[in-house]
Amino acid sequence: MAKNFTTRQQDYSKWYNELVIKADLAENSSVRGCMVIKPYGFAIWENMKSKLDKMFKDTGHVNAYFPIFIPKSYLNKEAQHVEGFAKECAVITHYRLKNDEKTKELVVDENAKLEEELIVRPTSETIIWDTYKKWIQSYRDLPLLINQWANVVRWEMRTRLFLRTSEFLWQEGHTAHSTKEEALNEADLILNIYSDFCEDFLAMPVIKGYKTKSERFAGAEETLCIESLMQDGKALQAGTSHFLAQNFAKAFDVKFTNKEGKQDYVWATSWGVSTRLVGALIMTHSDDNGLVLPPKVAPNQVVIVPIYKNEEEFKQISEYANKVKTKLQHANIRVKYDDRDTQKPGWKFSEYEFKGVPLRMAIGPRDLENQKIEVSRRDTLEKESIDFENIENITNNILEEIQNNLFQKALKFREENTHHANSYDEFKDLLKNKQGFVYAHWDGTEETEAKIKTETKATIRCIPIDNKKEEGKCVYSGKPSKQKVLFAKSY
Amino acid sequence: MAKNFTTRQQDYSKWYNELVIKADLAENSSVRGCMVIKPYGFAIWENMKSKLDKMFKDTGHVNAYFPIFIPKSYLNKEAQHVEGFAKECAVITHYRLKNDEKTKELVVDENAKLEEELIVRPTSETIIWDTYKKWIQSYRDLPLLINQWANVVRWEMRTRLFLRTSEFLWQEGHTAHSTKEEALNEADLILNIYSDFCEDFLAMPVIKGYKTKSERFAGAEETLCIESLMQDGKALQAGTSHFLAQNFAKAFDVKFTNKEGKQDYVWATSWGVSTRLVGALIMTHSDDNGLVLPPKVAPNQVVIVPIYKNEEEFKQISEYANKVKTKLQHANIRVKYDDRDTQKPGWKFSEYEFKGVPLRMAIGPRDLENQKIEVSRRDTLEKESIDFENIENITNNILEEIQNNLFQKALKFREENTHHANSYDEFKDLLKNKQGFVYAHWDGTEETEAKIKTETKATIRCIPIDNKKEEGKCVYSGKPSKQKVLFAKSY
Repeated sequence: MAKNFTTRQQDYSKWYNELVIKADLAENSSVRGCMVIKPYGFAIWENMKSKLDKMFKDTGHVNAYFPIFIPKSYLNKEAQHVEGFAKECAVITHYRLKNDEKTKELVVDENAKLEEELIVRPTSETIIWDTYKKWIQSYRDLPLLINQWANVVRWEMRTRLFLRTSEFLWQEGHTAHSTKEEALNEADLILNIYSDFCEDFLAMPVIKGYKTKSERFAGAEETLCIESLMQDGKALQAGTSHFLAQNFAKAFDVKFTNKEGKQDYVWATSWGVSTRLVGALIMTHSDDNGLVLPPKVAPNQVVIVPIYKNEEEFKQISEYANKVKTKLQHANIRVKYDDRDTQKPGWKFSEYEFKGVPLRMAIGPRDLENQKIEVSRRDTLEKESIDFENIENITNNILEEIQNNLFQKALKFREENTHHANSYDEFKDLLKNKQGFVYAHWDGTEETEAKIKTETKATIRCIPIDNKKEEGKCVYSGKPSKQKVLFAKSY
Repeated sequence: MAKNFTTRQQDYSKWYNELVIKADLAENSSVRGCMVIKPYGFAIWENMKSKLDKMFKDTGHVNAYFPIFIPKSYLNKEAQHVEGFAKECAVITHYRLKNDEKTKELVVDENAKLEEELIVRPTSETIIWDTYKKWIQSYRDLPLLINQWANVVRWEMRTRLFLRTSEFLWQEGHTAHSTKEEALNEADLILNIYSDFCEDFLAMPVIKGYKTKSERFAGAEETLCIESLMQDGKALQAGTSHFLAQNFAKAFDVKFTNKEGKQDYVWATSWGVSTRLVGALIMTHSDDNGLVLPPKVAPNQVVIVPIYKNEEEFKQISEYANKVKTKLQHANIRVKYDDRDTQKPGWKFSEYEFKGVPLRMAIGPRDLENQKIEVSRRDTLEKESIDFENIENITNNILEEIQNNLFQKALKFREENTHHANSYDEFKDLLKNKQGFVYAHWDGTEETEAKIKTETKATIRCIPIDNKKEEGKCVYSGKPSKQKVLFAKSY
């Protein structure tokens, strides 16, 4: 399957697109900008969802569902929000079709024009805060810790599977609090959930930080984010958590009576990750042989392929393979036994290698005889022969090793591609010739940020939280700076 | 909480609406026809989803995701389908808003008009079969057994929370097969999954049957359904499974090469259940004291309420209650310990009764002393005192009893409200004075069906599968009939 497959070196962007298509993850639909997420790609997203959902619930959040449509006027209510979002979106103007009397073709029924246009949600702050107004009267009604799994639409002109599509799937959390401090803590809590999820579950190292004012979410007073480095040296924003202060509460007039009996506006956060994470996952680990999946998120962690010459051998090997399968299943390992007779073992090997199954087991007559199994790791492509006895523990250990190895490998890549610039010349040189993350001092002004962006295409990905606080001078303006910030070109 | 609550006798429809609102299940949003599903209502839907999803996966189905938008022309492709669906829907005509230069208000950007209008999916057969065309070439690519969890929009003029809303959540299965027989078997398999799910999980008895031609899904050659009887004597269609024959394959030109090397059109099914099931669940079991939930679907199966006079008692009781909680959790029982000091026990009792928690446990100083727990069943409102020792088994047994009791109660209600009419006068009398299900002979013509509907408002809910085949005469026309069919007024 890896034949006719572009390498990363040849054309990284083409490599990514081919990988997504050939690994059966997703494809473009006939509707401009919208993708079809195929079963294999969706199974990866389902695993992400189920893990994140548990992490949210374990920290007291609950799920709910709000309408997909937002009245146009709602977008107007929060001034910054409308600037950031309102422009490119799907607008519903009519609610009925009819058959044209002459042509018999289906046409829009002009008698069914909406009084006010509806927008397909690009994000749900407005419709949710319009609802929270009805739910919140007293501090007793707070906090509200609500999450929604939903589809959203942002009319994108240039789309790429998973990374940027007009419709995408995501979760959006919307919380309401009685104090500023509690809302700030919530935004932090979620950032840490996102960061732990990416590092522990997706084996993808991230840098936690604050967005600069110009890169903040429209309507937020502070945007926290996690940034990850892809193999082509570009940064990818993997998740954001916003402290919205009282902006939406003021826009939608949501007040509560506090413990002292006084009225105050409610404090808010919102936060989200999307199917974009599937793109980030692919670009972090995959190689020129196809997809590489960390075991925790892989739909199949192990696949077993039988090797046989005749029906009799097939029977015996199948019996043995099913024993292996049962043992692994009892140890909660997701395992598939591929006993199809329509494909040869070699074809299956290529297929599962390309689809990133972490561990492949091959069982032939000699393995059966010796009570062994030949295993091949997707991350290192190394093979070894393991004992049937105690196979569940051995397998679990190997899967854990693969998970750790992928994280360490990605971390090493990031470290090798993280640079420090002490002058603007050095800064430009690094971005041009080395790509990757570049730490540099910045004077904290939007002006400098904008100029650097125009001149180098690099943006401030974040002001890292765990950064060393070191005095220095802005690489661009020479003005004083208190810490280096993280620059990169980005997706 | 049950104060100021309308009884079923007083006004069934009002009772239902009040129940949904007061039990915090859902509410109308500011967007006409769209509901907000509140966390408690959504938790019920999540439990349904997770059980159904497992049943689908256990029978070889996988999930995927297709675009929310459908090009207008696609609806035209299957002639019957467009008749049944195209009319009332959300139509997207533009993809951008802008600020009006004079008023500064947000307006539709007329320069951003779509060449072809997009429809928000009312159901996804067309966009999915447009996609399947790319996926299916050979019998080796079949069967495709794909399900999607999604939101859909049908512009409804009269809406009711859960039962009929413009936007609703559902699952839609879309399968592709190489033979007619296999597709028919799939439609049957799914009908049985739906039926088992409703009866075992929701404790809601259903009648399985075939829809008459006039009640079939637009584009289906056969529609199988499950019908349930609500407490007001009206029927509710709880799920449908369609045999689509080769209709969509022909409309979208989806052919495959069969084992004999010949080209043929692909056979199809589609099937779905929606958030409407939450409405059905409510109307099947709930009473004048509020919601009643079968334990299997209840978000909280058990709630523990402490009764204490002072801080010291609260401490001791909490310690005991937490032991109970831990024991129950280890037995996989969903339990909540409500130790809030902002509400009195009496308030909590009413709250959980109204919200349908199957089993309430109250723990006071005397219970602690005797190592007992007072339990109260929501279905019968009966109380008893049980031992701490072995509480997990006792609780599991009671929950099982409640589940069975609710099913038997609903079944008894259905049996008492199922009638047989031997003449049209009797038929009309039953529908007028007794409501419920009415079995009667029918001559099999659309004409008779339509006349009965006009004259009595009753429709043929289904031609039951498990029905006795008995010769007779149509109650309306007197013409020969081979079996009785199921009539009722319906939701």
